Amino acid sequence: MDARFERRLAEAAERTAALGAAALVVGPSPDLAYLTGYDPTPLERPTLLVVRPERRPALVVPMLERPLAAEAPSAGLLELLAWRDGDDPYELTGALLRAGPVLVSDRIWGVHVLAMQSAAPGHAWWSAAPAIGAMRARKDVEELAALRRAGAAADAALTDLLRGRLIGRREVDVAEELAEHLVAHGHAIAAFTIVASGPNAASPHHEPTERVLSAGEALVLDFGGVLDGYYSDTTRTVALGEASDRLRQVHEIVRTAQAAATDAVRPGAPIAAVDLAARRVIDSAGYGERFFHRTGHGIGLEVHEPPYASQDDPTILEPGMTFSIEPGIYLDAEFGVRIEDIVAVTPDGVEALNVSTRELLVCD
Amino acid sequence: MDARFERRLAEAAERTAALGAAALVVGPSPDLAYLTGYDPTPLERPTLLVVRPERRPALVVPMLERPLAAEAPSAGLLELLAWRDGDDPYELTGALLRAGPVLVSDRIWGVHVLAMQSAAPGHAWWSAAPAIGAMRARKDVEELAALRRAGAAADAALTDLLRGRLIGRREVDVAEELAEHLVAHGHAIAAFTIVASGPNAASPHHEPTERVLSAGEALVLDFGGVLDGYYSDTTRTVALGEASDRLRQVHEIVRTAQAAATDAVRPGAPIAAVDLAARRVIDSAGYGERFFHRTGHGIGLEVHEPPYASQDDPTILEPGMTFSIEPGIYLDAEFGVRIEDIVAVTPDGVEALNVSTRELLVCD
Repeated sequence: MDARFERRLAEAAERTAALGAAALVVGPSPDLAYLTGYDPTPLERPTLLVVRPERRPALVVPMLERPLAAEAPSAGLLELLAWRDGDDPYELTGALLRAGPVLVSDRIWGVHVLAMQSAAPGHAWWSAAPAIGAMRARKDVEELAALRRAGAAADAALTDLLRGRLIGRREVDVAEELAEHLVAHGHAIAAFTIVASGPNAASPHHEPTERVLSAGEALVLDFGGVLDGYYSDTTRTVALGEASDRLRQVHEIVRTAQAAATDAVRPGAPIAAVDLAARRVIDSAGYGERFFHRTGHGIGLEVHEPPYASQDDPTILEPGMTFSIEPGIYLDAEFGVRIEDIVAVTPDGVEALNVSTRELLVCD
Repeated sequence: MDARFERRLAEAAERTAALGAAALVVGPSPDLAYLTGYDPTPLERPTLLVVRPERRPALVVPMLERPLAAEAPSAGLLELLAWRDGDDPYELTGALLRAGPVLVSDRIWGVHVLAMQSAAPGHAWWSAAPAIGAMRARKDVEELAALRRAGAAADAALTDLLRGRLIGRREVDVAEELAEHLVAHGHAIAAFTIVASGPNAASPHHEPTERVLSAGEALVLDFGGVLDGYYSDTTRTVALGEASDRLRQVHEIVRTAQAAATDAVRPGAPIAAVDLAARRVIDSAGYGERFFHRTGHGIGLEVHEPPYASQDDPTILEPGMTFSIEPGIYLDAEFGVRIEDIVAVTPDGVEALNVSTRELLVCD
């Protein structure tokens, strides 16, 4: 038995009560893995963890997955309620709910939410993010260590990629090599490798194509994977062959914005201030319209998770929170620049989990 | 532009109207890929397809994914509504909905369903499975061809595995070899490889362990992957070294049940009759309590999708429907037997997409 799960399940129950809710319902997802160590594939047969204040947590589980659930590191803490094909798992779940609002974990499939609403009418159904998202946002020592290792491995993958030649190769081939470096440096999987050259760099979520990289272009590399269960995610923009004055100018604005946002990270500051710090630099340089996304996202068991560095997120920073800082400027049909690092909030400021140089690199 | 998507989007709108609903809302999922050819990763920023009778379909999409959406094969049919971080995508979506029930695709994340319900109160929210699940259940000629290729590749993977020695190896190592054979025979990925030996075979969704395979045991192999976008899924139970009388007897009951269920497949028959045919054989042999799951599941873009061969599913079989037939008997702490093939409903009966022998094989 891992004491972490006992602590986390207890805190989830406390937070559920503090929010005035009767229960927290969690489906197969990083939320379930975080609370119980049990991480089955989400399927049409529902697996539903029900956490209630001052009650033993229950796990509603399909009969044919009961043996797996019984091996979960937290199984001894859970009441396992197995259902057979033909039973109604939503009625079984509904019967566990006292009157009051129900918190629903973000990634539960809609089909399960609708069926619970139908089987247990009369409840209000709220997002569980204020409870479990807030818990997951503050990483413990082991989680921070895993995120540090993931960040260092991503940095090393970039170093290896930039040792070789880029000009003349296709985006897809560079993406494949980058994925190999991520794995070679300890990632279990490479989750994404955006390689966006020339005008493609103006599309923030570009998928690599057959396009061949040419001298004189900008190249955005945005990549990450999963190492010991935790994500890496970093972005660098390089100039191929030579850097135009315009690329140098835009890159310097993004670099300054990224540094300003990083400097704004400290316990007690609102995460919105981090977003604002980046936004002010880009706005005052006249590119505000071309920076059309938030400054960053939390990272951990998921590549995007609370908190979000945006004007909408009310989170006040606390030690142990980890998120990306990734301002960008995107010039349609021309080029784009983005610089991204993962940072952790420390007791007295900020720690960067990526340390590759943020200066504009010129590569062949 | 692929004419398939125009046809499918039109049929989805017709089915939405026929069900008395005002709209169908689909998130990133096989449903979205089926209707539009667009298959982004599901994330916290919602991408939502809104299909309405007699209106042009709309795709609500995050601004930073707009360039990707614009390249989808169906993009010319869609009104792309890009939203920026800071906008409210749920209000944007809600504004597209006329009064009336809204169909919600099964895999949309709960967080998006709750936010839509909150932004657009006054609608009833129903599962979209009766519309889109029913469409996807009837495969067209190209889909059937892909499923046939996937089935043949899974059969070939099994043949290759059984050429070598099994006894003395660990479950995880056999699973890894099976995955390699799946890929070698054309699968893009091996999605699952259940290798369950001895008492582990009594757990239908067992995950391979370090356990070493021994002579005298039963071994359940349940495996599949994705080939040209479509899933394979087959199961065989083999005897290691020699088969005990008890294993032979139980295997023969399962084989007879599987054959009876397959014989029950024809257009116009209820899929529940397929389940019943298998269940009757196992019940009358006295093992009814040890067959605690449905007889099968639809298969296509997802490994589990409608229709389901169970007593609950009201589907009447039509040509082009594809599903598994996989009865099993599970004897706790002792062994288990399952035999699974994918079948397609033809205009006059049934076609088996897996043809490996269903006799009990004795392997070393």
